[in-house]
Amino acid sequence: MSFHLHPQLAADCHLITRLDACDLLLMNDSRYPWCILVPRIEHLRDLHDIPRGRREAVMDEVDAVARALQQIHHADKINVAALGNQVPQLHVHVIARHTTDEAWPGPVWGVGTPRAYEQEPAGRELRAIERALAEQRKDSAL
Amino acid sequence: MSFHLHPQLAADCHLITRLDACDLLLMNDSRYPWCILVPRIEHLRDLHDIPRGRREAVMDEVDAVARALQQIHHADKINVAALGNQVPQLHVHVIARHTTDEAWPGPVWGVGTPRAYEQEPAGRELRAIERALAEQRKDSAL
Repeated sequence: MSFHLHPQLAADCHLITRLDACDLLLMNDSRYPWCILVPRIEHLRDLHDIPRGRREAVMDEVDAVARALQQIHHADKINVAALGNQVPQLHVHVIARHTTDEAWPGPVWGVGTPRAYEQEPAGRELRAIERALAEQRKDSAL
Repeated sequence: MSFHLHPQLAADCHLITRLDACDLLLMNDSRYPWCILVPRIEHLRDLHDIPRGRREAVMDEVDAVARALQQIHHADKINVAALGNQVPQLHVHVIARHTTDEAWPGPVWGVGTPRAYEQEPAGRELRAIERALAEQRKDSAL
């Protein structure tokens, strides 16, 4: 079973890490702490296409990323969404929202112009997310 | 443990039915077949707040509603989202999208003006969703 990340997602995002079930990406838009999880199964389109036996693993990772962003960015709200109207490969957005961000209280999609990360802030964000996920794994193994 | 549906959700939606885990609502906007599931647990805000032991039941219902809307409306895409920037009680949107709908390919939130259902079309939609869910339950019991 071969899985290929959709080229649009590859172009729009940095790869943070490959989790057990999903590729974890950082959207290259520094206005919002914004992760995308892509389950590594071919030909998924809608959330309900995830085979039931794989769904728990995917949702565990969605929850872990949500907690990581919450913790790092002290978010006012976490938005989770599987839309996929433009990129057909199933991908789950996990976005840390603040009442002061540009799109609040609306959703982030289609608002304004993405602001690409500079190299170093992107690196810091990637490492912070990896570290927060590693800490969760350590805690849950205790 | 007492659960109360947020008054804003009650005002914006018709109650379709109470599923095992969630109240199932129909958004009173006839432009889109648009359901909302509200897990009947007090004080949930984010998706990752759902106790892990309840998450599978909630996700089963989200998937079932997505399949029901897909089947009834021959949707081009199903959008699933937990945003909650405006109404803090955790609620999960499940929306059948068509490439011909008003907001396509953007998300539906904040686009144009909701068009309330007339009484009879609302009744038909509620009954169609209930019937599609009942058929799924019957199939899965076989």
